[in-house]
Amino acid sequence: MAGSNGDDRTPQNGAGGGAQEAPASFDEIRQLLGELPGPDLASRSAAATRQQQLTKPRGSLGRLEELAEWLAAWQGAHPPRLNRPRVAVFAGNHGVAARGVSAYPAEVTQQMVQNFIDGGAAINQLCANCDADLRVYELALDQPTADFCQGPAMSEDECARAMAYGMLAVEEGFDVMALGEMGIANTTSAAAICCALFGGTPADWIGPGSGVDQAGLSHKAEVVGQALAVHQGQLDDPLEVLRRLGGLELAAIAGAILACRLARTPVLLDGFTCTAAAAVLYRLDRHALDHCVVAHVSAEPGHRRLLQAIEKRALVDLDMRLGEASGAALAIPLLQAAVSCHTGMATFDEAGVSTPD
Amino acid sequence: MAGSNGDDRTPQNGAGGGAQEAPASFDEIRQLLGELPGPDLASRSAAATRQQQLTKPRGSLGRLEELAEWLAAWQGAHPPRLNRPRVAVFAGNHGVAARGVSAYPAEVTQQMVQNFIDGGAAINQLCANCDADLRVYELALDQPTADFCQGPAMSEDECARAMAYGMLAVEEGFDVMALGEMGIANTTSAAAICCALFGGTPADWIGPGSGVDQAGLSHKAEVVGQALAVHQGQLDDPLEVLRRLGGLELAAIAGAILACRLARTPVLLDGFTCTAAAAVLYRLDRHALDHCVVAHVSAEPGHRRLLQAIEKRALVDLDMRLGEASGAALAIPLLQAAVSCHTGMATFDEAGVSTPD
Repeated sequence: MAGSNGDDRTPQNGAGGGAQEAPASFDEIRQLLGELPGPDLASRSAAATRQQQLTKPRGSLGRLEELAEWLAAWQGAHPPRLNRPRVAVFAGNHGVAARGVSAYPAEVTQQMVQNFIDGGAAINQLCANCDADLRVYELALDQPTADFCQGPAMSEDECARAMAYGMLAVEEGFDVMALGEMGIANTTSAAAICCALFGGTPADWIGPGSGVDQAGLSHKAEVVGQALAVHQGQLDDPLEVLRRLGGLELAAIAGAILACRLARTPVLLDGFTCTAAAAVLYRLDRHALDHCVVAHVSAEPGHRRLLQAIEKRALVDLDMRLGEASGAALAIPLLQAAVSCHTGMATFDEAGVSTPD
Repeated sequence: MAGSNGDDRTPQNGAGGGAQEAPASFDEIRQLLGELPGPDLASRSAAATRQQQLTKPRGSLGRLEELAEWLAAWQGAHPPRLNRPRVAVFAGNHGVAARGVSAYPAEVTQQMVQNFIDGGAAINQLCANCDADLRVYELALDQPTADFCQGPAMSEDECARAMAYGMLAVEEGFDVMALGEMGIANTTSAAAICCALFGGTPADWIGPGSGVDQAGLSHKAEVVGQALAVHQGQLDDPLEVLRRLGGLELAAIAGAILACRLARTPVLLDGFTCTAAAAVLYRLDRHALDHCVVAHVSAEPGHRRLLQAIEKRALVDLDMRLGEASGAALAIPLLQAAVSCHTGMATFDEAGVSTPD
């Protein structure tokens, strides 16, 4: 079920077959952002009309109704479908891990990728649970990004290539794409990105991640503060924020989000790190995430603040903080439920049920 | 998939085969409450121990971990199972419906039961989505309870028989039971019950239900106030509250909850009306609902207040307000996910993943 792609940055399943031409520079990415398609209003309207005919009080399925309409709008089709969900996990390593910001050693990134391939991780069980196709994409795990306390994590070329890699990973034909990540130390990167994009102090955005103690939290805040000081004055452009403070897997997620928009594939975003990558796009264009739903709000405290900043309400709040797309995969059955109700329910006419007095 | 049982109060599938001897009076129900089994601490402890060995930071699956431990504790087995979920919908009619407290006419209860049997309702799609077995139990739909603005909704005998009916509907061998209801006007009954059990004003507990307007809301509050005045001084005993202000389907749900406890079947509670029925048991014994999880918090505003009163945190909050066990069924995939992760994940040792530094 899980596929790995070595570390050549070419997805096993997407080489040459990606849905889009990949951009090679920040300028090309900016151009792409200017050309993003909008929702299919006719499909959304058809979904909304049908909702009102189904045997239930109007609006009584709440967010399930919204999800059906959102899927129709961004799949560009009515009725919406949810037979082919895919989960994509992007894995990367971070130079800043050497500063001891995680409870786990950096080699755990590679070990967990192997666990994904062997089928032993939470994400494997969650995908099996909803018949989702799981792909795992390694981004040069033996070549971590540079320590962003000393300089940019990536060159523009490295960052643009990682975004292009994420774009090429997106194939046409999936009904939803659930995105997530694996990368020891990447909540530190996510906190630095959020602080640069939305302000506040490092303490506002850091959290225990995989489980650091109180001293570890203070250390994490210091590291984020140091990074922001090093890059001060050069963080006005969100793409610069991404390359200076981000990581390869975060850049790939940002690219995948853009490619999903072009491929008419709605997106489920996972927790704090995944949403921080998405927030870079939001800062470039506040409609860039309109085809994305945030699946869950993480127990990592910065996530709730981040959702406010990007104007998103998560679907579920179950105190999860695992990453690896676990929260996003958990929400797939909710989308399946929304589509099943929308497509399978009888109308008042069909069922002979009386309408309101 | 849906089965109906006529209105003879004998479940099609449970006649004579119920898990328990059914009580015939409030005294026998009170005796039963004194004999409820507790959680299986050894199974819960085995689940908690395994959680700490699985390849994830401790606690990082949040409520999924709690759910796996809760299922083990109340199934009395480790590992917990979730292969055989059942959804039970109890339907009843209410004399108070004649006062125009609902947006829909009373015949919709019967029409919706037919829709359940024909497979056209939301609950049918939600059950199919998670391979749950659906049963529908009609409680004498042609004999509504008495109008509780004029006297008790039920005699003690009627109420105890409806509870016994709910108990007999519970068969052994299911991994979870999701409970819900259908009954035009039953949010008015639920509001009256909550007001009697937990205090506050009628306005604190009423809401739009299936969709009444502002004038309808005021009318609903008046009706609840009138009912409380009629039964004043006779509402100290929660079972009296149930028989005076409740309905047949609410009594059946209370009975089913008790029978599930005895059958070691954990329970998922649906929205406002279902939880109001459960709250009667909570008021009799605050541990009576320890084997129950509230699946969702309804958009019906009284539900949030009720969850605080019974010390429960719902699993999801998706603005649903449909009833018919829809929120409870929607949560079944979350339990399946919890069990899949708990039983299917590799341990750190098995996967060769390093533990924290």
